[in-house]
Amino acid sequence: MPKKTMSIGLSIRYLGYHAAGWRHPAADPGGSTSFRHFATVARLAEESCFDMLFLADGIGVRVTDTPPGSLTQSSQVADFEPLTLLSALSAVTERIGLVATASTTYNEPFHIARKYASLDRISDGRAGWNIVTSWSDAEARNFGRDRHLDYDTRYDRALECAEVVKGLWDSWSADALVGDKEGARFLDPLGLHVLNHEGPHFRVRGPLDVPRSPQGRPIMVQAGASDAGIELAGRNAEVIYALPRSLAEAQAYSEKLRVALERHGRRREDLRILAGVTLFVGRTEAEARARYDAMRDLIPPELGLSYLYAQLGDLSGYPLDGPVPEPQDPMVKSIARALVDQAHRENMTIRDLYSLIASGFGSHVLIGTPESIVDTMEAWFSCGAVDGFNLCPALLPLSLQEFTDLILPELRRRGLFRTHYEGTTLREHLRLPLPASRYGDPVVPTVVEPMS
Amino acid sequence: MPKKTMSIGLSIRYLGYHAAGWRHPAADPGGSTSFRHFATVARLAEESCFDMLFLADGIGVRVTDTPPGSLTQSSQVADFEPLTLLSALSAVTERIGLVATASTTYNEPFHIARKYASLDRISDGRAGWNIVTSWSDAEARNFGRDRHLDYDTRYDRALECAEVVKGLWDSWSADALVGDKEGARFLDPLGLHVLNHEGPHFRVRGPLDVPRSPQGRPIMVQAGASDAGIELAGRNAEVIYALPRSLAEAQAYSEKLRVALERHGRRREDLRILAGVTLFVGRTEAEARARYDAMRDLIPPELGLSYLYAQLGDLSGYPLDGPVPEPQDPMVKSIARALVDQAHRENMTIRDLYSLIASGFGSHVLIGTPESIVDTMEAWFSCGAVDGFNLCPALLPLSLQEFTDLILPELRRRGLFRTHYEGTTLREHLRLPLPASRYGDPVVPTVVEPMS
Repeated sequence: MPKKTMSIGLSIRYLGYHAAGWRHPAADPGGSTSFRHFATVARLAEESCFDMLFLADGIGVRVTDTPPGSLTQSSQVADFEPLTLLSALSAVTERIGLVATASTTYNEPFHIARKYASLDRISDGRAGWNIVTSWSDAEARNFGRDRHLDYDTRYDRALECAEVVKGLWDSWSADALVGDKEGARFLDPLGLHVLNHEGPHFRVRGPLDVPRSPQGRPIMVQAGASDAGIELAGRNAEVIYALPRSLAEAQAYSEKLRVALERHGRRREDLRILAGVTLFVGRTEAEARARYDAMRDLIPPELGLSYLYAQLGDLSGYPLDGPVPEPQDPMVKSIARALVDQAHRENMTIRDLYSLIASGFGSHVLIGTPESIVDTMEAWFSCGAVDGFNLCPALLPLSLQEFTDLILPELRRRGLFRTHYEGTTLREHLRLPLPASRYGDPVVPTVVEPMS
Repeated sequence: MPKKTMSIGLSIRYLGYHAAGWRHPAADPGGSTSFRHFATVARLAEESCFDMLFLADGIGVRVTDTPPGSLTQSSQVADFEPLTLLSALSAVTERIGLVATASTTYNEPFHIARKYASLDRISDGRAGWNIVTSWSDAEARNFGRDRHLDYDTRYDRALECAEVVKGLWDSWSADALVGDKEGARFLDPLGLHVLNHEGPHFRVRGPLDVPRSPQGRPIMVQAGASDAGIELAGRNAEVIYALPRSLAEAQAYSEKLRVALERHGRRREDLRILAGVTLFVGRTEAEARARYDAMRDLIPPELGLSYLYAQLGDLSGYPLDGPVPEPQDPMVKSIARALVDQAHRENMTIRDLYSLIASGFGSHVLIGTPESIVDTMEAWFSCGAVDGFNLCPALLPLSLQEFTDLILPELRRRGLFRTHYEGTTLREHLRLPLPASRYGDPVVPTVVEPMS
């Protein structure tokens, strides 16, 4: 039996996840608003057989000028909308998965179901939906609200939205498209189902106008570590983006998810947990550290502080090279607590802490040689705490190139990652089963003959 | 001074606009759900220098099984979502414009502004938004309503939505992206504007997270012949899709639009009116007629009648080869009236009328040789009633190939259509001016350097 291999995704938002990446000598500051940049990155990632591209999202400009001066330094203002960008990227790639974020708070489930089903067919079965509920007032204000929805309402709506979307994705039996010219039967109406959903948040009739895709339906992706987030994942998620800070955290999270899955009649094997990592790799430890330090030194203090202010509140009264104080009015309590605990444990100053966060936007930062980094990846993977990783590159395409040149050969030498795509759909890359239809319909994909 | 040339668009929905096109020997019934089909069509259209691809839309399945048996015969059930499809097509084309439909009734203006701005940048300035308000209960039921919004509310909302979208498209000054690595200035915050819109239907703060595109902002497209539709056009439209049934109708419509434009300080030259036409062309009149007849004979009566039922109500008591009765409970009164008047004027039976409508989905049908068809096109164009045409092909790619082989040479022989693209953006193809920013900002496009 062949050794199980890792699932690896690539986050492609902005120019990468390092706050000051755009100031790096190798950076093209216009890249994050240039399709050419993303096409280059997507093709490189496909050459390296990544499972998927992943596009995080906020609907609008979330960064503020806090502290003053940080806004002008931030590259996280100019963006593409995820579904348009990934649809365009689908046409310049052939195999790699395409996971786009859409918020259940600011979207109607019919639109979500339709757009992802459409991308799924356009890409011949490579689409995934990253389900988020949106947490920022900045987004709320673009949609007629002053504040974002409270936590319970948000997750309640998300659960119902996901159910509706899954229901709509079952609208078409895989054999509903008949195309019988002689008999004048384009479709079999019995293979087209009306959902007729009525719930507290949504009333949606259906059917969807997009036939079933070769992967049955798009992959459902989720993050979220809170109780409601884990419940949502237990019911729906096929991929989890996790942000564990240690192996112990990863193990505990995996166990929580296993329990949630089993509550819904699912198994841990039905889910792929990917840990977000930002890698600074060098042929020697010193070279890796020098790469980290060089990018760290490009972070202006205002920009670095903006990451801490967003989580911990105003720190203007505290010296940069002093200790990290207790959080005031934190945005997300659990994140603030974990940050402060880590800073105290590792004896970090305010500058150390913002440098770390601003280096990978909160993902786990690993600095080292290919051997030491892959040692860590293998340790997390082989004990089953994670099924793979989501690469949050410091700077694109540079960090991707470094990964391909240095990490990938080591992963492959150990048999931990594929050397070619075994299948054609994202579901096949992830080795996840075809989902059954709620109507008992065939889920074998519709064969669409190419134009003669 | 060079002769003014026509603007020509291509509607690409489904397999074409003929109800029974999918039964034609040259048709691939799976084409309308295959990206390869659309990529082939888009590339052919670009080779012929069309101004734009146009994608009409309904959000869901609008056709019903009325009369019974018609649903299984209809190919207008399986679809792609417009923005995902056009985004993917943007990556396999370089010059042709990309116009997608989005409804102001079932979309938030922030999403519309963002997705079209994103497509506009992905495509280097080739996007357009076809503004519709949605008229069907089928769509309403996918979005929590039993009936579609009443006419006045729909257009009131559409007017405000269009204002918000235009406002958001001005969020970025063309020179706001600085990219100064040395000075740590990624952007100039003074070039980033908060809209702070508050109106009866929408509250939207902004700014948009997508910088200005090379064409300033996407082209605004509209149809609609009612008073409110013309008001919306007078304020916003840069392209109009018209469905005149005669030169006199086209002239009257153009005049109405001129008055509406002037009411808003605009000129007739600020607008391109394109008439929807479905062409059946042959090297002789007999060949053209034979092509029309051959496709007509593929229309099963149930499918043909479904077009009339949708407009005129139940006709089950009337013989197919008898006269067209007065409309009962028509969907849109003005359309029903015009249809019945035309049938009476031209002495058409029910079968004749449905055959005509089902041949081009209501667009003007021209049957003839290249010379006679181009005579009509030139007559409509040279008197200024229209600025060009929107080709609603009976069957794709067949009708496009016939247009390219037979009509295009005749148009070019008379100097009525371009032989190569003079510019790169849709706005340049249409010879429409760059829109000014409401903030007095530069509108000269941001130059994004390609990756080195």
